[in-house]
Amino acid sequence: MERFEAGALREYCKNVLRAEGVDETCARDVANVLVDADLTGVGTHGVSRLAIYAQRVRAGVVSPHNQIRVLRESPSVLVVDAGNSFGAPSAIFAMERCVEKARESGCCFATVRNSNHFGAAAYYAKLASGKGMIGFVCTNLTGKIAPHGSAEPFLGTNPICVAAPSLEKPVVLDMTPSVAAMGKVILADKLGEKIPLGWALDQDGKPTTDPAAGRAGSLIPLGGPKGSGMALMVEILSGILSGAGFGPHLHDLYSDMETPQGVGHFLGAIDISHFIETETFCAGVTQMRGEIKNLRRVPGVDEIMLPGERSQNKKEENLREGLILPALVVKELRALGAPHGLTLSARE
Amino acid sequence: MERFEAGALREYCKNVLRAEGVDETCARDVANVLVDADLTGVGTHGVSRLAIYAQRVRAGVVSPHNQIRVLRESPSVLVVDAGNSFGAPSAIFAMERCVEKARESGCCFATVRNSNHFGAAAYYAKLASGKGMIGFVCTNLTGKIAPHGSAEPFLGTNPICVAAPSLEKPVVLDMTPSVAAMGKVILADKLGEKIPLGWALDQDGKPTTDPAAGRAGSLIPLGGPKGSGMALMVEILSGILSGAGFGPHLHDLYSDMETPQGVGHFLGAIDISHFIETETFCAGVTQMRGEIKNLRRVPGVDEIMLPGERSQNKKEENLREGLILPALVVKELRALGAPHGLTLSARE
Repeated sequence: MERFEAGALREYCKNVLRAEGVDETCARDVANVLVDADLTGVGTHGVSRLAIYAQRVRAGVVSPHNQIRVLRESPSVLVVDAGNSFGAPSAIFAMERCVEKARESGCCFATVRNSNHFGAAAYYAKLASGKGMIGFVCTNLTGKIAPHGSAEPFLGTNPICVAAPSLEKPVVLDMTPSVAAMGKVILADKLGEKIPLGWALDQDGKPTTDPAAGRAGSLIPLGGPKGSGMALMVEILSGILSGAGFGPHLHDLYSDMETPQGVGHFLGAIDISHFIETETFCAGVTQMRGEIKNLRRVPGVDEIMLPGERSQNKKEENLREGLILPALVVKELRALGAPHGLTLSARE
Repeated sequence: MERFEAGALREYCKNVLRAEGVDETCARDVANVLVDADLTGVGTHGVSRLAIYAQRVRAGVVSPHNQIRVLRESPSVLVVDAGNSFGAPSAIFAMERCVEKARESGCCFATVRNSNHFGAAAYYAKLASGKGMIGFVCTNLTGKIAPHGSAEPFLGTNPICVAAPSLEKPVVLDMTPSVAAMGKVILADKLGEKIPLGWALDQDGKPTTDPAAGRAGSLIPLGGPKGSGMALMVEILSGILSGAGFGPHLHDLYSDMETPQGVGHFLGAIDISHFIETETFCAGVTQMRGEIKNLRRVPGVDEIMLPGERSQNKKEENLREGLILPALVVKELRALGAPHGLTLSARE
């Protein structure tokens, strides 16, 4: 079993994108975001996406250049146009500016329009929690969730992420408002596995265990009207407030190689120190974490895990032991670099 | 069947609270919030709460006076101490100030500490959407949800509400991160009805259909780690960022008549016009609503409802036809006024 160093994998991904003509800063940001997803155990949003990213640059539907522009600015608002660059550099740019502005005003939220798939939302929320702030991130995507009561896909599998610091690790909730993320359905499809019943409907609106039928059909919202309502609110924030567009008017990462995705993001930072001493806040979160972990457990559970805890443990393990990627993903990655004379080496 | 005019019911509730020594503005705010919940079909958060509110004033655990203070202020932050007044006046105060401040800075968020049960979150979020802003509201409550993996209640049944304007009615998502709200369990208990399996665990951590056993046990989070994580994030925002306290450290509205509840709220407003023309935003929401309502429906569904739509339809109907309250609630309401010579008349 090959294991990869995070640093080497990041460098390789960056070089593949550079060889495809992507600007240095964009290539670096995308590589950082993808590899962080793999490190945290979210392989669905990791380097398995590099192939389609490179393909979209080659097809001319994603700009390889850093064309981020600030269209409007207020003390606690930032309106960003990503210029059809990758999602990662524009979301990093927006969150870093929100953190700066929140230092002054207390909080700042940004919309990003004219953007593309940005990977795992947690990366950007953690930029805020790493600076003693509460980070909030959401994005819309092509409409794959059937709104509650409907039999057709419409709302995006829009992730919602909140990260808050503690005295130790941050608490990071990163969730989709569907029962399962489309990334999991895509990965199952790639690996030839079935999906559990209850994740997806086929094109006729019937529950299915076939990931290909699920991709062609729709995803079931979490808790009916609740998940449906959450996905809709993300469309409103990321798609309508940003001016990006929503659900069925966006373009798919995989199936539409002729049109920019046109997705939008909504993200921001809340500076804790404007509300309460940061130390007091972090101590409170750590106390709550300790109390929860000490609760009586249901049978079969060895340890109660806080949001993001499993991912952070996984990241520490992967940094220590080296990263294991599915063989298919490794093969695909190497095929991407080969024409450019790039090689991906496993660790010694 | 008696039907009540909203205005008369509000006046009666206000007068009951005035007779219990509650300040005019507090009594008015509480009455407005409770009656709005009944009007919108959320009887669990309506005038059925008046009895316990009055009882807590009499017991000296809720201040009948308006003692709201602003402790800290930044361009987009407000830190409020409710002075152990009712939740309604402090949440209204905080949201109205957030709306004012968001006009200047683009957005503003407030914490409220040292507060009490504030009723339905939607009331406050709609204060923002009524002013062309996106409203966000959450609050914590006594810990009744078992965190994912645990067999004990800890996290509050913390509601999360987002409201956004459109060209017509606002879209209002108001949800609890448990499978069902504790209010529904309480009302079932009051009305002698069973609850569906999957809503609650008994004190031994076993699923139950007995609402009394569920009140004594714990509520099941929506979607396991997702609902559990949402409830936890509300504790962080409403309980820790505010300095109020969290989950098991709060005091129950019903079972603890000796200690102030000590709950906290987190709420705020995002001024749409700082991001995009408000008219464009509202037209976008209206367009999305129309597209969703025209989707193919699953069998048995006559109409696809947007978040908050059912509540708004109910409110229009109740304002037109008069409000019907459960007979037990009417009896309880009349018993509250009788000692003060107050009478509640049904409409002609």
